[in-house]
Amino acid sequence: MAAGLHAPNPDDLLPVAGLRIGTAKAGIRKPGKRDLLVLQFDPGSVAAGVFTRNRFCAAPVHVCRKHLALSQGAIRALVVNTGNANAGTGESGVLHAQETCDHLASMLGLPATQVLPFSTGVILEPLPIDRLLAGLPQALEAARAGEEGWLEAAQAIMTTDTLPKASSIAVQAGNTRYHITGIAKGAGMIRPNMATMLAVLACDAPIAPELLARWLQDINALSFNRITVDGDTSTNDSFLLVSTGAKASSNGAPIDHDAHPDAAALKEAMTALAQQLAQAIVRDGEGATKFITVEVDHAASEAEAVQVAYAVAHSPLIKTAFFASDPNLGRILCAVGYAGIDDLDVQKVDLYLDAVHVATQGGRHPAYREEDGQAVMKKQDITVRVVLGRGKAQCRVWTCDFSHDYVSINADYRS
Amino acid sequence: MAAGLHAPNPDDLLPVAGLRIGTAKAGIRKPGKRDLLVLQFDPGSVAAGVFTRNRFCAAPVHVCRKHLALSQGAIRALVVNTGNANAGTGESGVLHAQETCDHLASMLGLPATQVLPFSTGVILEPLPIDRLLAGLPQALEAARAGEEGWLEAAQAIMTTDTLPKASSIAVQAGNTRYHITGIAKGAGMIRPNMATMLAVLACDAPIAPELLARWLQDINALSFNRITVDGDTSTNDSFLLVSTGAKASSNGAPIDHDAHPDAAALKEAMTALAQQLAQAIVRDGEGATKFITVEVDHAASEAEAVQVAYAVAHSPLIKTAFFASDPNLGRILCAVGYAGIDDLDVQKVDLYLDAVHVATQGGRHPAYREEDGQAVMKKQDITVRVVLGRGKAQCRVWTCDFSHDYVSINADYRS
Repeated sequence: MAAGLHAPNPDDLLPVAGLRIGTAKAGIRKPGKRDLLVLQFDPGSVAAGVFTRNRFCAAPVHVCRKHLALSQGAIRALVVNTGNANAGTGESGVLHAQETCDHLASMLGLPATQVLPFSTGVILEPLPIDRLLAGLPQALEAARAGEEGWLEAAQAIMTTDTLPKASSIAVQAGNTRYHITGIAKGAGMIRPNMATMLAVLACDAPIAPELLARWLQDINALSFNRITVDGDTSTNDSFLLVSTGAKASSNGAPIDHDAHPDAAALKEAMTALAQQLAQAIVRDGEGATKFITVEVDHAASEAEAVQVAYAVAHSPLIKTAFFASDPNLGRILCAVGYAGIDDLDVQKVDLYLDAVHVATQGGRHPAYREEDGQAVMKKQDITVRVVLGRGKAQCRVWTCDFSHDYVSINADYRS
Repeated sequence: MAAGLHAPNPDDLLPVAGLRIGTAKAGIRKPGKRDLLVLQFDPGSVAAGVFTRNRFCAAPVHVCRKHLALSQGAIRALVVNTGNANAGTGESGVLHAQETCDHLASMLGLPATQVLPFSTGVILEPLPIDRLLAGLPQALEAARAGEEGWLEAAQAIMTTDTLPKASSIAVQAGNTRYHITGIAKGAGMIRPNMATMLAVLACDAPIAPELLARWLQDINALSFNRITVDGDTSTNDSFLLVSTGAKASSNGAPIDHDAHPDAAALKEAMTALAQQLAQAIVRDGEGATKFITVEVDHAASEAEAVQVAYAVAHSPLIKTAFFASDPNLGRILCAVGYAGIDDLDVQKVDLYLDAVHVATQGGRHPAYREEDGQAVMKKQDITVRVVLGRGKAQCRVWTCDFSHDYVSINADYRS
């Protein structure tokens, strides 16, 4: 089940110059599943990454942070396995992540610090490092084939995802046509706090490392850091932005500041693409049947708006009501009330469901009719809008409903 | 379904001297259901209450706070309706709660400020005040019958509860034998922040108002403020402690300080009773099949211990794993990691499931075997113990698992 999500059409996925893709079936957890991905980047590529703030963060997250710092973002390859998160694995987990990089680096003739490792899957189980290493030659063999294969790449990183997530945008700047393509995975344990495991967004524009790192923060704040499925911040969340620089910019100069003529269009496209992928994760949220946008307006600060939006987006009572298409909308006021704003004046709060004005002045709107709320609740895509009447800040958070299938999927995850 | 909860035996429920109970079928939401409760207290009784911190708190909560302040705790009656929360009802809701008190007060010849109103049920729907007022004579008629009827009282306040919750303890102090009896309701929208809707604990000891108010805070902190079903803090949470003073103390002096010879035994008994009722709410948590104690030890502060315990107790991933009896215990480390302790050293964290040592030094314990974890997961009552290795503070929080029935119950709540 997935709320309005469709498999990407391979023809819509654009090759990114300076980048090669390879996948393999390494049998990490189960045989016959595409579970290993290697991306190679040409010399001159730069990467920026954000990672989970979970203190029990996975071993590969530690190694990624270290390698990005040591290489100053000059990354040449990344390797992703699914089926095992290599988290809660202590010292041996870090050694395994390091060994993975060492192995791939020696096959490619690179320093290990230019390779980034990623893992996703079950926590607290040792990484089957032998099977992973044995799968690398197959992935490199496939990689020689060329720039395409994004769909296979998206498939190779799935866990409980029901559909692969990949998307592309082309940006025309003068005579230069840039390609940006991204892939992502995720359906459960989704409440990214920095980024989600795992999204990679690559483009062939010549973006300078410092600018790329700054953009990463801005883009992340408006995309992966604004979604939730179940409120569980994963141990493995990672979002990587890669720029191969394989294409020259429209004026021939590197894109190293926001005033460069190509900068605005590229950043906007990257943000839109990251939002598409983030929303795809929510639409494919475990058991999701509905896609909910929670918009909080007229807040005193953005932090406060986000706090209220997540209180609504995390409430299992609200999420089950959406699943049932039941306009039991007092539950939304209840969540706004316990969101932690101590001086909230409930007389000034307004609640809308799409265009239907549900509540005002601390109670039901006089013109509200149950059948109007009911009509909206039956839709697949719904916007909840909470107006706080406190200031000018706003935010938008995306989430899904909470169904029987969420329970089934997570009760049976390891079996 | 309820995890190890049984209906109270009426013979075990002790009458509290100085208190009369009456219930009625007022047809608040559905006909034929016992949905109205009136408790009357003799002159000299004192009450102390704590209420929800939800900013959208219900109209009766506003009125309760006002009446307790104006009467300085000298309360003579309370009235509870189920079927409608009288929350999210704006100004007219407050008028309705006030009208309920006025009406009952005039029937009993009391000032309205000595009456407390309580409501529980659906939010955002107008209180059917006419049916409520019409039911009061029936409740008072029944009340004349005597001191007993606690089981009926517990039944009259149920919403999605599957079983009534009531319990008693007798305390012997010298030649005086005190009776303490409490009732509670609650199964969903349970993450009390001050207290839970609704618990009333009454005793016949002569406890001074100031001491009672202080005890209320201490008792609440160790009982209702330590439970969660779904993380949703209700609009109506209320916990009331009543002392009728109908019995003289063992030395004839009022119990007005902790050094009074009867004080320690009474406070201990009240705390134990409040914990029993709080745990009964969790055991009857919507869809609950398991009762989980989350214990956090060696924390730097109690606040930090509570923060970690609730991160574990709220995680839908952990709760669904308990439902499935699946020892997917990495999810617990994950929740500890995202609980918000920025300087947590995961190398110092230990995780136990009952007596089974699951994780140590950031990874799986070398002696841990899946079958040992599996054996514990199959039990109905399970203790998760997280040792943080940071200090001497600790806490204990109670919660339940997350099952298909939670979704069913909340998807169908209003139908």
